[in-house]
Amino acid sequence: MTTRRHILTFAGGVGGGKLARGLAAVLPSDDLTIVVNTADDFAHLGLHMSPDVDSVLYALADRNDPERGWGLAGETWNFMAALERLGGETWFRLGDNDLATHVLRTQVLAQGHSLSGATAMIAQRLGVAHRVVPMSDDPVRCMLATDEGTLPFQDYFVRRRCEPWFRGARFEGAEVARPSAGFDDALARATAIIIAPSNPYVSIDPILALPGLRERLRRAEIPIVAVSPIVGGNAVKGPLAKMMREQSVEPSPLAIARYYSGLVNGWIVDEADRALAGAIEALSCRVRVCGTLMSSLNDKARVAREALELAGALAVAPAG
Amino acid sequence: MTTRRHILTFAGGVGGGKLARGLAAVLPSDDLTIVVNTADDFAHLGLHMSPDVDSVLYALADRNDPERGWGLAGETWNFMAALERLGGETWFRLGDNDLATHVLRTQVLAQGHSLSGATAMIAQRLGVAHRVVPMSDDPVRCMLATDEGTLPFQDYFVRRRCEPWFRGARFEGAEVARPSAGFDDALARATAIIIAPSNPYVSIDPILALPGLRERLRRAEIPIVAVSPIVGGNAVKGPLAKMMREQSVEPSPLAIARYYSGLVNGWIVDEADRALAGAIEALSCRVRVCGTLMSSLNDKARVAREALELAGALAVAPAG
Repeated sequence: MTTRRHILTFAGGVGGGKLARGLAAVLPSDDLTIVVNTADDFAHLGLHMSPDVDSVLYALADRNDPERGWGLAGETWNFMAALERLGGETWFRLGDNDLATHVLRTQVLAQGHSLSGATAMIAQRLGVAHRVVPMSDDPVRCMLATDEGTLPFQDYFVRRRCEPWFRGARFEGAEVARPSAGFDDALARATAIIIAPSNPYVSIDPILALPGLRERLRRAEIPIVAVSPIVGGNAVKGPLAKMMREQSVEPSPLAIARYYSGLVNGWIVDEADRALAGAIEALSCRVRVCGTLMSSLNDKARVAREALELAGALAVAPAG
Repeated sequence: MTTRRHILTFAGGVGGGKLARGLAAVLPSDDLTIVVNTADDFAHLGLHMSPDVDSVLYALADRNDPERGWGLAGETWNFMAALERLGGETWFRLGDNDLATHVLRTQVLAQGHSLSGATAMIAQRLGVAHRVVPMSDDPVRCMLATDEGTLPFQDYFVRRRCEPWFRGARFEGAEVARPSAGFDDALARATAIIIAPSNPYVSIDPILALPGLRERLRRAEIPIVAVSPIVGGNAVKGPLAKMMREQSVEPSPLAIARYYSGLVNGWIVDEADRALAGAIEALSCRVRVCGTLMSSLNDKARVAREALELAGALAVAPAG
């Protein structure tokens, strides 16, 4: 009997969306589940916002705006301008098209459906064939300790533009949150896990913080491959490098590999970081070096293939 | 001691907005309170919609769309198109700009403010100086008996385009609703009441259905002037004439005067209906005949002046 391959991906927003798009290009929909961080979900203007879920869905639907890095391509901002004229809150920018997603999700949740159900409905209507599931249907909220006190994630990230000094994150509600049914199912079937090049502190840690999850990953004895979110000392996008420095950690794939030590056993690192491969391998990991920037669909599919091949190699002959 | 003049107007949507705009053009803001029907308020897409309040506010702010007859001028529809692509409900059309009003109102209500408070905030931000108050902060819902069963107002009016046969209206919640504080205050100070050319069955009756209101109007012994919503056998706008016929009533200002008999003692009727003036006066009313179509701001101010003059004449020498 051969086990049918099932790839489980942990994803945050933009980096998660890019790798998810690459994996979706090379894997049939039955072979992939993308679990998305929901710790940056928040209530705004009475709407339930799931920014990472939307980033992944829009990327998979080829509807994301690659220049802006978030939201939908071809977006318009008439609602936002009208809300500004009315003196409403405009620090979190909502496009007219994007708003339809938030209104529909909020309505579906108010009707008693789960976040998983709302996500599945929106995915289907966006024409996304691959399975995208929130990490949990229970509320988990990323709270950041900063030199300005504790800030909810979006306050830090959007309103304060990542300017406060980062001292650590905690995930309110994580201790009692359960993995969503889709996550649970994919965990049971997974033959490999691929961690997208998302921010470990605020995008991947919330997923790993779900009760029993690290233990379950350990017991599964499957390859866990991560794509480095740091390239040549900088984050491809977002505040990760700044956050690392504020924690007195020099930003590098090696530092990230140390952070995930004991969890990840395969690393995709960029050619710019080839010199670190040996040091990362010394952490009982196998390393593949390749170009990891994912601009075109070809790039995304290539990085996805590298990660899958590394996972395949680890399944045959584990690292360390 | 002279009592300071205070004009209280009862208004529905479009006709209410037109007369309110005229009154606002000729009266200082301290002398006018516009009480608006809220029985066609409803929850839609998780938002609290107050269509008549918005029609009046947009008219007073000179932001209404005169061609379409509802909503804002220069409106765009990108949200609606996106929601349609996502398979959401699109029978009630929401413009990108209009949506900002609904989102802000819903947010303010969710924060614990009253509908009066939300209305005052939106009015202020739209630059509306005259006082616009909802008839009640308590929920009242207009339910229509039709040949298709009982329909909530917006289902009849928008979704079913007024096609079902109208058999009568009832106002759920009216029996326990209290007039809003602004309405109550204006009632105490009013030296005259002007009923806008709005639909009696579904726009004015909900206001009159508030407990004790008719008795209070009677005891106030002030002129009550109405502008006929029927001109030459037809409603200026909306389904009123059709609804009258379905009740076996021939649409005419006389039929409306009979409907309001014992309440209204002054009538503004259109020149097209001059022949009915005598019959209406026989109902113990005084009648003024003038052009009542309100297209331009001049028209609106002129009709407002006619109504105010009639109210002034009735205060000196009551009709009947």
